[in-house]
Amino acid sequence: MTTAPLLVTMGDACGVGPEVVLRALGADDAAPWFGAALVVGDIGVMRRAAALLPDAERRPLALIEAPAELEHCPPRCIAVWQPHGLPPGLDALPWGRVDARAGAAAAACVEAAVAALRRGEGAAIVTAPLHKEALAAAGVPHPGHTEMLQALATRGGAPPPVRMMLANDEIKVVLVTIHMALRDAIDAVTFDAVLHTLRLAHAAAARWGQPRPRIAVAGLNPHAGEGGLFGDEELRVIAPAVAAARAEGVDAQGPFPPDTVFMRARRGAFDLVVAMTHDHGLIPVKYLGVEHGVNVTLGLPFVRTSPDHGTAFDIAGRGVADAASLRAALRLARRLASA
Amino acid sequence: MTTAPLLVTMGDACGVGPEVVLRALGADDAAPWFGAALVVGDIGVMRRAAALLPDAERRPLALIEAPAELEHCPPRCIAVWQPHGLPPGLDALPWGRVDARAGAAAAACVEAAVAALRRGEGAAIVTAPLHKEALAAAGVPHPGHTEMLQALATRGGAPPPVRMMLANDEIKVVLVTIHMALRDAIDAVTFDAVLHTLRLAHAAAARWGQPRPRIAVAGLNPHAGEGGLFGDEELRVIAPAVAAARAEGVDAQGPFPPDTVFMRARRGAFDLVVAMTHDHGLIPVKYLGVEHGVNVTLGLPFVRTSPDHGTAFDIAGRGVADAASLRAALRLARRLASA
Repeated sequence: MTTAPLLVTMGDACGVGPEVVLRALGADDAAPWFGAALVVGDIGVMRRAAALLPDAERRPLALIEAPAELEHCPPRCIAVWQPHGLPPGLDALPWGRVDARAGAAAAACVEAAVAALRRGEGAAIVTAPLHKEALAAAGVPHPGHTEMLQALATRGGAPPPVRMMLANDEIKVVLVTIHMALRDAIDAVTFDAVLHTLRLAHAAAARWGQPRPRIAVAGLNPHAGEGGLFGDEELRVIAPAVAAARAEGVDAQGPFPPDTVFMRARRGAFDLVVAMTHDHGLIPVKYLGVEHGVNVTLGLPFVRTSPDHGTAFDIAGRGVADAASLRAALRLARRLASA
Repeated sequence: MTTAPLLVTMGDACGVGPEVVLRALGADDAAPWFGAALVVGDIGVMRRAAALLPDAERRPLALIEAPAELEHCPPRCIAVWQPHGLPPGLDALPWGRVDARAGAAAAACVEAAVAALRRGEGAAIVTAPLHKEALAAAGVPHPGHTEMLQALATRGGAPPPVRMMLANDEIKVVLVTIHMALRDAIDAVTFDAVLHTLRLAHAAAARWGQPRPRIAVAGLNPHAGEGGLFGDEELRVIAPAVAAARAEGVDAQGPFPPDTVFMRARRGAFDLVVAMTHDHGLIPVKYLGVEHGVNVTLGLPFVRTSPDHGTAFDIAGRGVADAASLRAALRLARRLASA
């Protein structure tokens, strides 16, 4: 094998993950832009997804026993590596419903992919969307991919501080907090959390070819607190963290009012924005469409990207889901893994 | 006087308000799209602002003693009505600085304009931006225009429930909470607050020519709480308020995940979005630029609009501020006042 493959997890079996995976990997122009790749998933689920695609887009599937077998996969086939121990009957689950078995299978595929990466059997992991309620129903003790990967990356000791970055053609955003109630997110905006985020964002941008990125920090409160009138987190927490990052050589500025900083970044004033909450950061990234957005986890000991959309239960199983965001995720994973 | 004039307050004397007011009112094509208008402001401040404009854009200013004198204003002049009791020396304040005198003057102009509206001397109020810190420095007990107007609209009894609506060519957003710390905003998202907002939004859209608007309600928490995993305000507060509004005939849907609902509205799935917090709502409205956004206060006994930008202290006094948003605010005020 000339290049290590991207390991593409199938996501939730009841969502659009399996169909967009096949659509992205099966595109005629796929190989040039991301190289070798294989699916980590259930062969029955992937066959059911293949049946949704029009003939012109459908490729044969080849079940492989381990990632290394990819090199023996026939031309034009898509290789599917099925980890041991997936629940039976996944290909009979109804589309678009939360199911604990789908949650368990999605988690098992991610675990298997990370283990394979650790054995040197892959270049990076690209994850199709899972459903957080299905994950919870399966008893998985992590609210989403990011937290699960963080735990899997821990070999004893404290988990590494990881952050979610969302990128599209216009802006890049790194989030200080993600999957928690907004009330809890406010408490999680600490000096250390903001400073860690700035360090990770700074280091990550170097891999994008920006050795000294201009980072804007969005405030938490309306008007970034308006000098303390509408909350003091900017004065107490965020501004000191920005100052500390600057002292380390990070070109961080702010905190700026959240409602205009993304517009300014879009126009080129900054290379990257650090946002305090999930939705402050994701609303602008998604506003123009989720087709080209990519999610990157910063701080892991391996490269991980994913598309910028969810399981889309409302359209799952109809073969109409757009694979553009997953294509962008594959392309970026290869680029980062080669850096 | 054939039509009652729009009353245009000058805003903070140290910001871009005075210059954008003159630029908008002085445009050659102005009268056809908003009819009669006058400035409520300090004549010295307005003269200083006029001096910033290029000759081709500058019009003579005419000091009038009361709005009714507008009909005697010479052609091509811009009428300035100076309320009694403004602080002296406003035209000598440095540009781009917070000053209590500028805050006091901005507030006094708004108060005078509302009093004139109540006497039937105006059609609507259009407010140039004030600075919230200057307002606070002046001891004004309201954080911004909206709250001040709400108090001025109260004639005994409880203040009317008002809401801020932001509109541009792509989306309209109505906010449940505005100028308060994010932590306090979460507590202010109550059943009554959401229901009131839905009623006001529904009624307002009728004036826009949409008698049964499709209203999307954005959640508060990431993924709208993901079924209670990330906060329960959606289940406890927002969904019941949506149900109550629907029972009253309002076409409200949601709560939806905040990060994708604005994108969906932009693509035409909804006529209007109700957002729980200032920045959830304003980030998408401003993302593509503040030039054409208009702020409308819903629930007042009179029409009030304003531009979608602030005092822009960084460029104040240079004569370069863009008046497009104020022009849009004038146009919309006239349209709503005529409805």
